[in-house]
Amino acid sequence: MTTSSPTLLGPGSALSEVFALAQQLRADSVRASTAAGSGHPTSSLSAADLMAVLMTRHLRYDWDEPENPAGDHLIFSKGHASPLLYAMFKATGAITDDELMTTYRRFGHRLQGHPTPVLPWVDVATGSLGQGIAYGVGIALAVRELERSPARVWVLCGDSETAEGSVWEALDKAGHHRLSHFVALIDVNRLGQCGPTELEWDTDAYARRVEAFGCRAIVVDGHDLEAIDSALTTAGDGQAPTVVVARTVKGRGVAEVADKGGWHGKPLPEDIAERAVAELSGDRDLRVRGPRPPDASPVASPGDAPRDGAAEPPRYAVGDKVATRVAYGAALAALGARPDVVALDAEVGNSTHAEDFGKAHPERYFQTYIAEQQMIADAVGMAVRGFRPYATTFAAFLTRAHDFLRMAAVSQVTIAVCGTHCGVEIGADGPSQMGLEDLAMMRAIRGSTVLYPSDATSATALTIAMADVEGISYLRATRGAYPVLYAHGEGFPVGGSKVLRSGENDEVTLIGAGVTLHECLAAFEELANEGIQARVVDLYSIKPIDTQTLARAARETEALVVVEDHHPEGGIGEAVLSALATTGSRPAFAHLAVTGLPGSGTTDELLDAAGISRTHITRAARTLLDRWEA
Amino acid sequence: MTTSSPTLLGPGSALSEVFALAQQLRADSVRASTAAGSGHPTSSLSAADLMAVLMTRHLRYDWDEPENPAGDHLIFSKGHASPLLYAMFKATGAITDDELMTTYRRFGHRLQGHPTPVLPWVDVATGSLGQGIAYGVGIALAVRELERSPARVWVLCGDSETAEGSVWEALDKAGHHRLSHFVALIDVNRLGQCGPTELEWDTDAYARRVEAFGCRAIVVDGHDLEAIDSALTTAGDGQAPTVVVARTVKGRGVAEVADKGGWHGKPLPEDIAERAVAELSGDRDLRVRGPRPPDASPVASPGDAPRDGAAEPPRYAVGDKVATRVAYGAALAALGARPDVVALDAEVGNSTHAEDFGKAHPERYFQTYIAEQQMIADAVGMAVRGFRPYATTFAAFLTRAHDFLRMAAVSQVTIAVCGTHCGVEIGADGPSQMGLEDLAMMRAIRGSTVLYPSDATSATALTIAMADVEGISYLRATRGAYPVLYAHGEGFPVGGSKVLRSGENDEVTLIGAGVTLHECLAAFEELANEGIQARVVDLYSIKPIDTQTLARAARETEALVVVEDHHPEGGIGEAVLSALATTGSRPAFAHLAVTGLPGSGTTDELLDAAGISRTHITRAARTLLDRWEA
Repeated sequence: MTTSSPTLLGPGSALSEVFALAQQLRADSVRASTAAGSGHPTSSLSAADLMAVLMTRHLRYDWDEPENPAGDHLIFSKGHASPLLYAMFKATGAITDDELMTTYRRFGHRLQGHPTPVLPWVDVATGSLGQGIAYGVGIALAVRELERSPARVWVLCGDSETAEGSVWEALDKAGHHRLSHFVALIDVNRLGQCGPTELEWDTDAYARRVEAFGCRAIVVDGHDLEAIDSALTTAGDGQAPTVVVARTVKGRGVAEVADKGGWHGKPLPEDIAERAVAELSGDRDLRVRGPRPPDASPVASPGDAPRDGAAEPPRYAVGDKVATRVAYGAALAALGARPDVVALDAEVGNSTHAEDFGKAHPERYFQTYIAEQQMIADAVGMAVRGFRPYATTFAAFLTRAHDFLRMAAVSQVTIAVCGTHCGVEIGADGPSQMGLEDLAMMRAIRGSTVLYPSDATSATALTIAMADVEGISYLRATRGAYPVLYAHGEGFPVGGSKVLRSGENDEVTLIGAGVTLHECLAAFEELANEGIQARVVDLYSIKPIDTQTLARAARETEALVVVEDHHPEGGIGEAVLSALATTGSRPAFAHLAVTGLPGSGTTDELLDAAGISRTHITRAARTLLDRWEA
Repeated sequence: MTTSSPTLLGPGSALSEVFALAQQLRADSVRASTAAGSGHPTSSLSAADLMAVLMTRHLRYDWDEPENPAGDHLIFSKGHASPLLYAMFKATGAITDDELMTTYRRFGHRLQGHPTPVLPWVDVATGSLGQGIAYGVGIALAVRELERSPARVWVLCGDSETAEGSVWEALDKAGHHRLSHFVALIDVNRLGQCGPTELEWDTDAYARRVEAFGCRAIVVDGHDLEAIDSALTTAGDGQAPTVVVARTVKGRGVAEVADKGGWHGKPLPEDIAERAVAELSGDRDLRVRGPRPPDASPVASPGDAPRDGAAEPPRYAVGDKVATRVAYGAALAALGARPDVVALDAEVGNSTHAEDFGKAHPERYFQTYIAEQQMIADAVGMAVRGFRPYATTFAAFLTRAHDFLRMAAVSQVTIAVCGTHCGVEIGADGPSQMGLEDLAMMRAIRGSTVLYPSDATSATALTIAMADVEGISYLRATRGAYPVLYAHGEGFPVGGSKVLRSGENDEVTLIGAGVTLHECLAAFEELANEGIQARVVDLYSIKPIDTQTLARAARETEALVVVEDHHPEGGIGEAVLSALATTGSRPAFAHLAVTGLPGSGTTDELLDAAGISRTHITRAARTLLDRWEA
């Protein structure tokens, strides 16, 4: 590198200077990945011209104050092009050349293999393809519908990732909501990881798809700076959601690798890298400051109103039969008094009762139709902008969004998720609609909180508590109506549990949640009639879990029976075993869960067939205690 | 019902008779759901005309021999229209009116709320929207590319479900592969569950999307039988993959509910149902037998060649460093000698080594590009046709297909899935690429088998074993190369484990798999140097699990240390605890797993930072044994 003071580029710089910047971005992409010994230089080279024009003339961003809410958003949906993104950061002066060259992809540093929000200029973690564009749509919704900010959203996509259905869910929503401040750029470099992409350089095919999904398409030569500039000017005119389909060359600018197969995800060997940097004249030191965000401050922000403004949710009388999904919807509607709370539905809001929120707060209720991936992406986008989203659908269909939930944890956002209609309890609709894997999925999300209320009072309290739970929190709700167990005012701290039945000489502890807690309570009665004293624990908090109460039950009773309306793996049974694994006591143990393939039927028939009904609980207790004299 | 003998309809019947059949299908849909007390009659009514024409004049199907490989396939992607499907079965005589009226949605019976393959005329379970069309594409690929059969595939879709990205993954592949024997019919009835759909009756918008994705679109009035007949004639002409976009009315034929909101998923009350049946003249007894399949028998079938024709896979020398993903690819390529084995890639085959199969058997290697949902759907479709698919991608990205894997278990198909690049072991690429939830996800799939080899010899054996494992089997493969531990010829039964180190006075048992097994072996050496005897267990089969060996270790040693490159929930630690929960012995226990958010780094740095390296294993062992004198 030269040591002379850098040349500063800005919106008024000539395109010849912008080209020099593009070449510098290329050279830095090559240098950084070769120094790291891994990375995706060729995928960076193809998009360098697009990004050079964007950052110099179009992206309105305050590099000194990334939190400026009027600033545009830039998302690399093709997260593997991180060398390019970090080269851009260097060009703004946000990071130094030294940081780029010595820390990229190294342990303990922030310039990771794929971008994450540990960097102040990155909104969301990417690297699972087809997701960045979906988060971009979510952010675009948040800035327009919630913040009413002038910010725009720019997303750089790869061409390979358009094979993911999630890309079309996103563009469908960009079109549906007329997100005219949303621009995606598809870097059509023709080569994927293993070979040519499906559509190769058929940019018209991309354009047809984009237009069919309700967005404006602009096809452009992605290495013609004048054409790019013109396309981005149009794209940013606020008239329509736009996709710039840019025909590019993978490895552009480095003759030895340009448009050649076999170079995906490979750093250039040092000799090739050296020649490449020379070819790119990569020894200049250009700095760039593009347009600043407009001064207009946003009309609304999550902090505009007091956070304790929750309206009073309904109170329930002990013994009344109320479904937890009903209590969830009512509590969510009440929680809407907090202006930062938003709700999202995947076209089942009348079943999940999320639509109660929509009726009360239509301006903060988002219908994503049957597109669970985009629902979670919207939630993530809104969380990025400081809102507290609640996303709701059937527990079974949340599995559709598993990869988005996984990545949301990498983005370290806070979102609340509710899955209703869990387990065989739902009855006649059959196994396709039964959430039997959701606890395993949600427990295994890093840093998650998993809640499973058994009555309306606890469902209400936990729904409200989730608004202040950091990270990804999950509430599992039941279809059917069961008796209210707790009076209004009872506290349900996250990580707690309730001992609903206990006495001096409890012999066995029955542990359940949701419908199985009600089965445990019925089993308690049956056992009592047989002279067996049972303790009953309502394990409403599955993660974190109340180890203390469980350990005490394990110490004080001879046997534990855990019963859950879920497959045996990864659910309540294993959560209890994990909690007890490092405690001293070891009572006899039985785990009742759903192992066979359920069909249609009534709730009672299906609980019994699955072996998780009161009958099976009493039988398990008797077996563990070896008490058959009854 | 009248008791006179039924009138028989066939391909030559007049459209007026076909209309009478459609009305009968409607009446039966109303009757069955009202009798059941639940179901989706209005969603059935909209599609009755389409299905009446299809089954009478176009669907070549042998109702007496559903296994006839030349027969067409009919899939209800809108599985909630099961009343219509079952009414069709009744019209063919495949089921009786009594079965329809007295068993639909009842416990222990086969006419479930959503169709499943417990019915001989149903290929795949549906009910999770956006999936049936994807399975249809998989079946269409199988019948053309593998069976070379004249069968065609017809899929009935809802309009709401086109919001799912998976629908566009499917149509993209239908277009890409030019599946000219594939026909989807979209029942555009304008009303979803909660209200109007996104596109309502904009059939041109549907057509534009369909055409942009490479399929032929035919827009039709879905209640004009002549138009339907003409559309299906064109659709079935074998010229192009086709989507019939049919404008319909939800609840058509029943004036009290037609085109009205609030009737989704609700059976008609008895009084309305009675009037509806009268309005539909639903007291006739029509039977239908449509066209028969051509006599041409398929050229190829999975049984064409001996099943024990596996070529010899490579042998590995103990101590050589070989990645399990490399051994997987080589074993899969060798297994390709079996003509029923097929392989699918999601555009990472050069990383996962699935492409080794592609090089050896290009005709049975399917590139699904970056579309993990469609990859699993293709696998399911091929399994339905009797093949043994192996679907491979990064473990992290299998989460994208979770809902498809869940439903594959409901379909009770046999498929093998391999996820590579698991855990923090992968190094510099960072958390987006690290599979840290896959064991929880795959264990919780009903009836699944979960395997996790630690060396090339066991990876080879288990890859081959999976071809004969019923249900959904999963192999977790590691990125890096580690020493071969076992000599050629060692057996690795599913459900087994290997005790790699043991002695007379083992004090602690170290349990690992994959990279953590190698860390356990290193810890064994360190502990031995300190005078602590450790037993080391290679837990290559996570589900089923070798309870006997684990129980023996729990009895014979004071302490267990389980270490896994996975989040703590739902993985190896909890599998071990579940296995030991009902055994008597209770040693001290430590569970080392990945809890924090990893970043980039080297394997060693990341294993250590996650607390799952040899250092942490020895420390955990010392702590459990309270032995710090070293």
